[in-house]
Amino acid sequence: MLDQIHLLAAVTVLGVLEQAYFFLQVIYARRLFGISPPKTSGPPEFERVFRAQVNSSEYFPIFLALLWQAGLFFHQGLAAALGLLYLYSRYCYFTGYRASSSERLTPIYFSAGVLWILVGASALGILHSLLSHYVGLNLLQLLTA
Amino acid sequence: MLDQIHLLAAVTVLGVLEQAYFFLQVIYARRLFGISPPKTSGPPEFERVFRAQVNSSEYFPIFLALLWQAGLFFHQGLAAALGLLYLYSRYCYFTGYRASSSERLTPIYFSAGVLWILVGASALGILHSLLSHYVGLNLLQLLTA
Amino acid sequence: MLDQIHLLAAVTVLGVLEQAYFFLQVIYARRLFGISPPKTSGPPEFERVFRAQVNSSEYFPIFLALLWQAGLFFHQGLAAALGLLYLYSRYCYFTGYRASSSERLTPIYFSAGVLWILVGASALGILHSLLSHYVGLNLLQLLTA
Repeated sequence: MLDQIHLLAAVTVLGVLEQAYFFLQVIYARRLFGISPPKTSGPPEFERVFRAQVNSSEYFPIFLALLWQAGLFFHQGLAAALGLLYLYSRYCYFTGYRASSSERLTPIYFSAGVLWILVGASALGILHSLLSHYVGLNLLQLLTA
Repeated sequence: MLDQIHLLAAVTVLGVLEQAYFFLQVIYARRLFGISPPKTSGPPEFERVFRAQVNSSEYFPIFLALLWQAGLFFHQGLAAALGLLYLYSRYCYFTGYRASSSERLTPIYFSAGVLWILVGASALGILHSLLSHYVGLNLLQLLTA
Repeated sequence: MLDQIHLLAAVTVLGVLEQAYFFLQVIYARRLFGISPPKTSGPPEFERVFRAQVNSSEYFPIFLALLWQAGLFFHQGLAAALGLLYLYSRYCYFTGYRASSSERLTPIYFSAGVLWILVGASALGILHSLLSHYVGLNLLQLLTA
C-alpha cells in the first residue's frame, strides 16, 4: 500500500528540506543585518528574505494538501512530478525575491500555475470518485465511450 | 478505499480554493492602498485584510489535521459537514474583519466552536481505536450495553 | 488499518491542542498590553509571545509532515515518541521565549534536532520503499546479510 504514496512522501520530505533551507537563509540574513528576534523589520534587503520565507511557509500546507489529493485521486507519478516543479519554482522565487521584489514575479506566477494544475487534477479525480460512488457514473468510461 | 476519504478530500480542495481567494484579496488590497511587497504595514483598512489572510493561513493546517482525524476515526460525512461549516465561518470572518475589527469576532468564535467539535470527534474516535487495540475495550459496546 | 496510524493521529491532535494553547497566550498578551488586532507590534514582552506563536505555527505543518512520513514509512511508535518530544520542546521554547529571547535558543535547537531525526527516519523508510519497488533491492536484507 505504501507503494501508492511513496513518491508523494519523497516529494513531501524534499519540500520540508526546502523549507529548512529558507529558514536558514532568514537566520543568516538576521545575522548579516543585525536584526535580532523578535524584530522582523529592517532594511528592504532583510525584509525581502523574511517575506520570501513567510510566503513560502504559508503556501506549504496548501502545496502538500494538493500534492496528496492529486496523487491519491488522479496519478501519483504526475502529482510528484508537478510537486518537484513547484519546489523548483519556489526556489527560484526565493532567490529572485532576495535579489529584488520584481524578480519574484515570474517564478511566483509559474508556481501558482503548477498549483492550479494540481487543483484541476485533484478536482477531476475526486469528482470521478464521488460520481462513481454516489451516482454510479463512470467518468472514464464516458470519455472513452 | 478512496471512498472512505473522498468527502474529506473534496472539503480539503474547497479549503485550498478559499485560501486562494484570501490571497487574491490581499493582492487587490495591496494595489488599492499602494503597498508593495515586502511591506506589510499600512492603513488599518489594509492591515485588517492582511491579518485576516495571515490568521486564516495559520489555522489552515490545524483545520486540515482535525478534519482528517475526525473523518478517519469518527465519521467521514460528519467531519466533511463540519468542515464546510468551518469554511463558511472563515469566509464570514474574512469579510467581517475587512469591514471592521469587531465584526471578525462572531464568526471567529463560531469557527473556533466548529474546530472544538472536530477535536472532540477526533479524540473520541482515536481513543476508541487505542482502547480497543491495546486494552481490548470496546467503547461502543460499553455505551450500548 | 487505523491501528497503523492511531498513535500518529493522537500526537497530531495533541499538537493541535498545543497550537490552541499558544493562540490563547497571544490573546491574553494582547489584552495585557492593550494591543488590538490588526496591530502586531508593541513592547518586546508582547512581540516575543507573538513571534513564539508565529514561529510555532510555521513549523506545525513541517512537524506533521515529518511525523506522518516517519510513522508510515519507518515506525509508528518511534515517530509518535519523537512527536511527543517535539511538542514538549516546543512548549519549552514558547515559555522560554516569553521570558527572554535567549531562553528560546536551547529548546529551539533541541526541537530542530528532533525534526532532523524525523527527517532521517522518513528518508530511510521512503528510500527503502522506493528501492524495493523500483530496483527490487531490499535494504533490510542487505544490512542483515
